[in-house]
Amino acid sequence: MKNSSDSTVIDVPPTAATSKKKAVVSTTPRQAGGGVKRGLSIFDFILRLGALGAALGAAAAMGTSDETLPFFTQFFQFEASYDDLPTFQFFLIAMGIVGGYLVLSLPFSIVCIVRPGAVGIRLLLLILDTVVLTLATSAAAAAAAIVYLAHDGNSSTNWLAICDQFGDFCQKVSGAVIGAFIAALLMMFLILLSAFGIRNSH
Amino acid sequence: MKNSSDSTVIDVPPTAATSKKKAVVSTTPRQAGGGVKRGLSIFDFILRLGALGAALGAAAAMGTSDETLPFFTQFFQFEASYDDLPTFQFFLIAMGIVGGYLVLSLPFSIVCIVRPGAVGIRLLLLILDTVVLTLATSAAAAAAAIVYLAHDGNSSTNWLAICDQFGDFCQKVSGAVIGAFIAALLMMFLILLSAFGIRNSH
Repeated sequence: MKNSSDSTVIDVPPTAATSKKKAVVSTTPRQAGGGVKRGLSIFDFILRLGALGAALGAAAAMGTSDETLPFFTQFFQFEASYDDLPTFQFFLIAMGIVGGYLVLSLPFSIVCIVRPGAVGIRLLLLILDTVVLTLATSAAAAAAAIVYLAHDGNSSTNWLAICDQFGDFCQKVSGAVIGAFIAALLMMFLILLSAFGIRNSH
Repeated sequence: MKNSSDSTVIDVPPTAATSKKKAVVSTTPRQAGGGVKRGLSIFDFILRLGALGAALGAAAAMGTSDETLPFFTQFFQFEASYDDLPTFQFFLIAMGIVGGYLVLSLPFSIVCIVRPGAVGIRLLLLILDTVVLTLATSAAAAAAAIVYLAHDGNSSTNWLAICDQFGDFCQKVSGAVIGAFIAALLMMFLILLSAFGIRNSH
């Protein structure tokens, strides 16, 4: 008990904000906490790359989902595309924004690896991650609701399933939704990582 | 410059985890930072109450959305209810979970007001808030996609709008979706508040 009450006086290393020159010199004493923080930052960077890949994959799958049936009448050709459903258009735009944000956030993540004490950048990333997570989740969930309807239809409202006719279209769109959910899941982990990173900084 | 390098040796007050008895005694020296943190915690509590109200309102509006048309044939009665659409069932369940979580999180929020130094509880709330935010957002977005379809229909897939017949049903469901989005928005602010609270603790 004596020990733990003594240890409340801690020699806190200078943060990057207070004195930048000293921070470069005194890297050795804070190796213990810095190693954990640097590990968290590297993991953050890898997760960000994974989420970026998932988001771009989802956007690509949705953007190329276009099926034309091999039969047609004189006046009409049967075609299904993401263009036909506003929810899928929203999905494509949202995934584009998510992917763009993730690309732009990569340099900040690298700064966190190089300078583990930068709490301000972590906080900024956490706030923006939360906003973009909400966007990715809503796009994925809205598209999932429509994909479910396309697969199973609904007898009460007389909405018939279209996946019997447009099988390839449905498969591609379903894949896009799964990709979006994976991206959202990875971004949830990113937020938790950022929170631990901020908590570890004191 | 001399001052800032001197101030790197900080007398950190004992946290709640190390010695509870001392924490009660030494509240006076940490009033300066404690006031800001306490204000954040009180705001957190108020936001939590608001989100709880929005979530319960959304659940109630969805749960009571039931419309029977005043005409019927010998064999069939025209009725619309949230039961008919799996997405709306998911919405009701998700809003129930969100509301239950928010009720359960209120005591923890009060603990944060009483003891502003409790970083562990803030971190726990942040993690759970993120998970529940994702749930609320996905429920709201999925229901919004279906409500949009019910309002406007879709000519490409031959899904007709049902709001012409079931106007009251559509209004109630739309209100529920708006309530869910308000709850999700308030929970986003909760996460940002928690992040600032954790950042302020050092």
